[in-house]
Amino acid sequence: MEGIKVSFENEPYRDPDFIINHKAPFNAEPKPDVLVQSFITPTEKFYVRNHAPVPDICPTAYTLKIDGLVGQPLTLSLNDIKTKFEKVTITAHLQCAGNRRTAMSEYKKVKGVGWGIASLSNATWGGCRLRDVLLHAKIFSKESGANHAVFWGLDFGCPEDNGKPYGSSITVEKAMDIDGDVLLAYEMNGETINRDHGFPLRVVAPGIIGARSVKWLDKITISPHESESFFQRRDYKIFHNGVDWNNVEKYWDKTPSLQELSIQSAICVPAPNSALYLPFTITGYATSGGGRKIERVDVSLDGGETWDYAELLGEDKGVCTKYWGWTLFRYTITKLPQLEGKDSTKIKLVCRAWDLSSNTQPKDVKDIWNLRGVMNNCWHT
Amino acid sequence: MEGIKVSFENEPYRDPDFIINHKAPFNAEPKPDVLVQSFITPTEKFYVRNHAPVPDICPTAYTLKIDGLVGQPLTLSLNDIKTKFEKVTITAHLQCAGNRRTAMSEYKKVKGVGWGIASLSNATWGGCRLRDVLLHAKIFSKESGANHAVFWGLDFGCPEDNGKPYGSSITVEKAMDIDGDVLLAYEMNGETINRDHGFPLRVVAPGIIGARSVKWLDKITISPHESESFFQRRDYKIFHNGVDWNNVEKYWDKTPSLQELSIQSAICVPAPNSALYLPFTITGYATSGGGRKIERVDVSLDGGETWDYAELLGEDKGVCTKYWGWTLFRYTITKLPQLEGKDSTKIKLVCRAWDLSSNTQPKDVKDIWNLRGVMNNCWHT
Ligand SMILES: [Mo]
Ligand SMILES: [Mo]
Repeated sequence: MEGIKVSFENEPYRDPDFIINHKAPFNAEPKPDVLVQSFITPTEKFYVRNHAPVPDICPTAYTLKIDGLVGQPLTLSLNDIKTKFEKVTITAHLQCAGNRRTAMSEYKKVKGVGWGIASLSNATWGGCRLRDVLLHAKIFSKESGANHAVFWGLDFGCPEDNGKPYGSSITVEKAMDIDGDVLLAYEMNGETINRDHGFPLRVVAPGIIGARSVKWLDKITISPHESESFFQRRDYKIFHNGVDWNNVEKYWDKTPSLQELSIQSAICVPAPNSALYLPFTITGYATSGGGRKIERVDVSLDGGETWDYAELLGEDKGVCTKYWGWTLFRYTITKLPQLEGKDSTKIKLVCRAWDLSSNTQPKDVKDIWNLRGVMNNCWHT
Repeated sequence: MEGIKVSFENEPYRDPDFIINHKAPFNAEPKPDVLVQSFITPTEKFYVRNHAPVPDICPTAYTLKIDGLVGQPLTLSLNDIKTKFEKVTITAHLQCAGNRRTAMSEYKKVKGVGWGIASLSNATWGGCRLRDVLLHAKIFSKESGANHAVFWGLDFGCPEDNGKPYGSSITVEKAMDIDGDVLLAYEMNGETINRDHGFPLRVVAPGIIGARSVKWLDKITISPHESESFFQRRDYKIFHNGVDWNNVEKYWDKTPSLQELSIQSAICVPAPNSALYLPFTITGYATSGGGRKIERVDVSLDGGETWDYAELLGEDKGVCTKYWGWTLFRYTITKLPQLEGKDSTKIKLVCRAWDLSSNTQPKDVKDIWNLRGVMNNCWHT
C-alpha cells in the first residue's frame, strides 16, 4: 500500500463552480445549465463521486492484478496495459444511481449523498478492452463458474465498509460482450485520466450504473459470486417501499443489485421558477441503459396533460454499436399554452424520454420511492 | 401467386375456447387462466394475430426470395432452408403491440383490434438463423446502406394496405446480431409450424413487437430504408397524446416505428372481481424486450400503496444468451391487508415488473394513451 495516504489532505484541485454535495469524501456535480453546454462534458465539469480520499498513485509502481477463475493470473504494469492491448476510444456517459436523489428525499427522507440532476456526464474514454485482458488471462468458461468480474479500488478508507477500499462487480457476460465496450481506461477526453476520475486506471462499464465503474483499479477477481463489498450487496438496490431500516436485512439478498441504467431525462435550462421571455429554448439531457438509443423526448408545458416532441441533438456513436453517450434535447416555446381557468402566464414544464424499447419514465416519485434513494427517474418538472 | 386463395373460406381449425377479438381476419387470445398454466404455451392456445386470410401454401412449391443489397440474391426452397443452414431451437415469447388495448380504449377510445391481456404467448421455435441466410446471400455492409431487413408475407388481402400482403422490417443490426437470435422458423413447439402461425416459414424476431415476426414469409429485401408497408410507416407507433385523426399525418414520419418491447406484466389468476378464499395464489406473467431478464415483480393488495415481491418461476434460457422467454410469477395471499377505514374484505390487486435495467411499468394508462392503442404496459389491476 506504499504511496497511498488515507487522509483528505492530498485531494486534487477542483473547479470552484462545482455544487458540492459532500466535502470529504468529495461529491460534486456541475450546475445544470453548464452540464448541457456541450455534447462532451469538459473534464473539470464532470461530476465527481468519491467514497474515500483520492489515492495518490505512482504510475510506475502501479500494477493491476487479475486472479480467480483464470488460467493465467496476471500482474500488469501500466505500460503493459498501454502496449499489450489494442487501444480503443469510446464516448459514454456515466450516471450515479443516486442522480436526482434530493428530489426523492423531498417526497420522503432517504439516506445517502444528496444529488441534484447533474450527477451524470458524458466523456470520451481511451483504454483497452477488459475483454482482451480477460482473454489474455485465459478466463474460465461460464460453466466453470466464471460469472462475475469483481473489482477492487485503491481508495482505502470507505466509511460504509469499515475502511476497506471501494469494490463492486459486473457480470462476466457484460465484461466479455464484444459489443459491451467495457474498458480499462487510462485516458479521459483525450488526456491522461486525472486523479478524481481514477488515475492511473479505472473501469468504464458503459450503460450500467456509475457505481460499477471502479476507479483506481487495484485488482480484478473472476468469481462465481458478485462482489462481497457493501456497495454491491447492501447499497445500490431498489427496495420496494415497504422496506425500512428495521426490516432491510431481510431484503438484502432478495433484492437484485442494480446494473443497467433505466430511462432518464431532465430539463437543465431553464432552472425551476425562472421568468421566461418568449421565444425560449429549453435544453436538457436524456439517457438510457444498455446502450439503448433515445428515440423520443416529450415536453409538456402543462404538467403532463399534453405533450410535444423535443428536438434531439445528434450523437456520434463512434466505433460502438451501442448508444452509450447521452442525448441532449431542446424545445423552443414560441407561445404560451391556453390553460383554461388558470393563470396562463404560469407554465409547468415537464419532460420524459422514451428509448428504443418504448420504456418511459414513471410519473410520480411516490411510486418508485426507495430507502436508498436510487434510480429516481420520474418525470422531471 | 398460385395456390394462394384470398378468401376466408379456407381458414384452419381453431381451439373453440379462444376469445375471438375479430373473426376475419382471425384474431384471438386464450383465456388468461389458461395462458399461465405452463411455461410453454401449447400451440393451440397460442394467440393468433392475422391481418388477412391465412394462405394455404404448398410446401414443395414454396420458395423464399432474398434480394436488395446483397452480393448473391437467392431463391431458396424449404428443403434448402432446412438442409443448408444449421438448425437452432430457441424459447421465446411473442407479444402483440396491441396487447391490453381494450384497457386503453376504456380510458379513451382507440382504433384497432381489441385485445385483453393474453395477446402474448411463449413457445419454442426451430429453424435457421436469419443471420446465416443473409451471410450466405453476401449481405452488403452498413456503410453500403444495408440498414433494414424488409419482410413481405404471402397473406394477400390486408384491408389496411389496399389488399397487399402484410409487410414489416427489422434493423440489419438486429438481424445480424449473433445474440439477436432472429430465426426463420419452420417448427413451433417441436412440430411443423401450423398455418395460423406461418406455415411453412416465418420470421421469429425475439424481444421485439410481434408485428415484426412476419408469417408466411415470401421475400426478404435488404434496404437502406424501413419497410414501406402501412404496418411499418403508419401503424405500430406510439404517438403523443395530442395526436388525433386530424393531425396524425404530420406525425407519421416524426414518430419512430416500434421495435423492442417494453416492460410488461399482468395478473391472470384471479380474474377481476373474483371472490377469493385464503390462502389464495395469484399467477401472472412478466416480460421485457431485448432479452432483458425480469429481475422483480411487485404485487400490491392495496392498489399500489404498499408492495411485496412475487416469486418468479424459473426460465430455461436454453442456448440463448438473452432472456427471450417470459417469466411467470406467483404470490400467495395468506392474510388480508389492514385497510384503515375501508372495507377490509375488498382488496385491490396490482402487479408491476422491473427488468435488469430497472425499468418499470407506468402507473396510469392516461399517461401513455395513444391513438393506435399500442404498448399499453401500465400497472395491471
Ligand atoms: Mo453512484
Ligand atoms: Mo401486433
